[in-house]
Amino acid sequence: MASPAPHIVVIGGGFAGLWATRALAGDDVRITLVDRGNHHLFQPLLYQVATAGLSAPDIAAPLRHILRRQRNVTVLMDEVTGIDTGARQVQMRDGDPLSYDYLLVGTGATHAYFGHDDWATHAPGLKTLDDALLIRRRVLSAFERAEAEPDPAARRALLTFAIVGGGPTGVELAGTLAEIARHTLKREFRRIDPGETRVMLLEAGPRVLSSFPESLSAKARKQLEKLGVEVRTGTPVGAIDGEGVQLGEERIAARTVLWAAGVAASPLARALDVPLDRAGRVPVQPDLSVPGLPDVFVAGDLASVQQDGKPVPGVAPAAKQMGAHVAKVIRARITRRETPAFRYRDFGNLATIGRNKAIVELHGLRFSGYPAWLFWLTIHIFFLIGFRNRLIVMLNWTWAYWSYQRAARIILGRGAEG
Amino acid sequence: MASPAPHIVVIGGGFAGLWATRALAGDDVRITLVDRGNHHLFQPLLYQVATAGLSAPDIAAPLRHILRRQRNVTVLMDEVTGIDTGARQVQMRDGDPLSYDYLLVGTGATHAYFGHDDWATHAPGLKTLDDALLIRRRVLSAFERAEAEPDPAARRALLTFAIVGGGPTGVELAGTLAEIARHTLKREFRRIDPGETRVMLLEAGPRVLSSFPESLSAKARKQLEKLGVEVRTGTPVGAIDGEGVQLGEERIAARTVLWAAGVAASPLARALDVPLDRAGRVPVQPDLSVPGLPDVFVAGDLASVQQDGKPVPGVAPAAKQMGAHVAKVIRARITRRETPAFRYRDFGNLATIGRNKAIVELHGLRFSGYPAWLFWLTIHIFFLIGFRNRLIVMLNWTWAYWSYQRAARIILGRGAEG
Repeated sequence: MASPAPHIVVIGGGFAGLWATRALAGDDVRITLVDRGNHHLFQPLLYQVATAGLSAPDIAAPLRHILRRQRNVTVLMDEVTGIDTGARQVQMRDGDPLSYDYLLVGTGATHAYFGHDDWATHAPGLKTLDDALLIRRRVLSAFERAEAEPDPAARRALLTFAIVGGGPTGVELAGTLAEIARHTLKREFRRIDPGETRVMLLEAGPRVLSSFPESLSAKARKQLEKLGVEVRTGTPVGAIDGEGVQLGEERIAARTVLWAAGVAASPLARALDVPLDRAGRVPVQPDLSVPGLPDVFVAGDLASVQQDGKPVPGVAPAAKQMGAHVAKVIRARITRRETPAFRYRDFGNLATIGRNKAIVELHGLRFSGYPAWLFWLTIHIFFLIGFRNRLIVMLNWTWAYWSYQRAARIILGRGAEG
Repeated sequence: MASPAPHIVVIGGGFAGLWATRALAGDDVRITLVDRGNHHLFQPLLYQVATAGLSAPDIAAPLRHILRRQRNVTVLMDEVTGIDTGARQVQMRDGDPLSYDYLLVGTGATHAYFGHDDWATHAPGLKTLDDALLIRRRVLSAFERAEAEPDPAARRALLTFAIVGGGPTGVELAGTLAEIARHTLKREFRRIDPGETRVMLLEAGPRVLSSFPESLSAKARKQLEKLGVEVRTGTPVGAIDGEGVQLGEERIAARTVLWAAGVAASPLARALDVPLDRAGRVPVQPDLSVPGLPDVFVAGDLASVQQDGKPVPGVAPAAKQMGAHVAKVIRARITRRETPAFRYRDFGNLATIGRNKAIVELHGLRFSGYPAWLFWLTIHIFFLIGFRNRLIVMLNWTWAYWSYQRAARIILGRGAEG
């Protein structure tokens, strides 16, 4: 009698986990995909939900719907609370433990406050749809409160938005907030002028978008400033509280502070009981397995992979490639062939800043402005999962482009925050 | 010197408040519209957000965006906490009190549990977008939990949905849940068969949709049963807890219970300090002013209006007509003309049950099934505010009709409920 097909447990339905699962569609394996939520999230567009351009369901799709035709997969919505690599078992919060033959951990990253966890309540970060809806609520509510505020200083603080961190998320948030203030909300208030809004982008390092060449960083900064964003580089944030931000000697009174500065690996990495790097990620073997645990793999933002002396970046294409590679390695293990080493193919780097504004680096080719923005748009629509979502997003964007409006300016979850 | 234009305070940006405000666009008045949220909600489609067919922003639009061109309106997001009719002042939770010359209270209705307020946590009602997202989360999570549940009895309880109340909302929820179970989720689970889901509609009275003629009620019941809904009439619910519902002698084990049975007037009615009817509504004068307070008006679901011996129903067209009428009366007051009496024009009554299924009563004309459903669809698209929303909703529905899919099957706010 044949032994049952090997059981692969995949933790996390992000790019790494989902791409690994799909790559194993034709194999004689049993896969269990576990995620805390019920959906795969297209994280590159999360800032658009936070800034009221898209609805939450526009950039997410139910995992079990995506995988409905792949009969070798069972999707479970649950939270993994522990991993016993000796017993080859995964502990769950609600359900029974799962035994595995192969394990892929792809739980990604979360925001980190560099030891200042008390900043979290004042400066929310952006990793999940719930984060995005919280940020949307705070941003829209700040304008609403400003309209009712008689005290000029308090009003100014309500109309000051500080974004900490000049990476892609910080730049996207700052650029979009400036657009909202200058265009979307124009003429909609009677007591305040949203055009007086200050949007400040605070970067501790010497330049924004530091993963790009210096010339493109400089272009991005110019584009931001054209949109009305005040860019401050070279000074780290010293303190954040409910009233604002301390930047060196300067006190910035800002009632809305957003955190786009630090990421740390998901805490599940610690459950593997192996040495982690400084950001809490798992330094993996060339085939993406965990040192000493050949049947356990880590992929995506949770994996620390060096290539040609440089770290592989924490971006969606890298996570997808790692996921697909883990599928290949598991297939090789099952058939007792040699496992190939992972090699990241860098297709380029792009970031958007706002309407008609972006920067692109593509195999040494560098461009910015309108052509870069069109390129960014095409790529993002193309990679968005699901035909319907693509169509809805395209429609929303076309409409938003011509009207300067945002489709999702709805404050949700009022009860939660008062 | 001319005296300043009269100040009209409108509480509530629903159909009554918004229609009154818009009807005064050309008048020399100052209007302040106060709402707890930032949006006008198209309540007739709220059940679609609850059942994951539409995103929350699809059926809502920011009040200040709708009114941006009407320069005599200031929109404030705040909560009215009291009304001092002697001093002609409205107290606010956050902002300064507002003095008024004319006041319109249009804060509508909320759900009522007939003295069983402990049922509220187990059986959420459907009045706001947050309610809808809570119901969506509970419904989708029930299927997810069932997939992980090894115990057959517990699984059955997770796959049993009890809807209390056979009015329009109860019927819409029941019909749509049955469709989701039988079609949308088909083949997406590996351990459970969503087709085994029980959807029960519990109505204490003798028939569902009792505001319709008996023949149409009977048709609606048949259509519901065709969709797989178990309809129980004639027995009131005796108890609701976390495990299910007591229906007469029968115990129904249902982990998801939804409340569509009772509405009560918004508690703000009590702030007027006038006699209220049994449902807490304000019995108004023929011109919709409050007895003894000629400059205070009540419109929409909060008003109790009798016409030809029958109460004017709590539906959107009635609220819009009342709102527009209050505008007319205020105009008459300002110019010291006689104030006209309100007269409700009943254009008909319609309710949807599910795909291709609805009932319509139109000036004595009665029809049901596919033509009624098409009629319902057209009317609802037509009345949905804002060109873009209409387009998005139409697209969503076209796609949903052909694919049997739901666009918004995303569980949000996981943190809030665990």
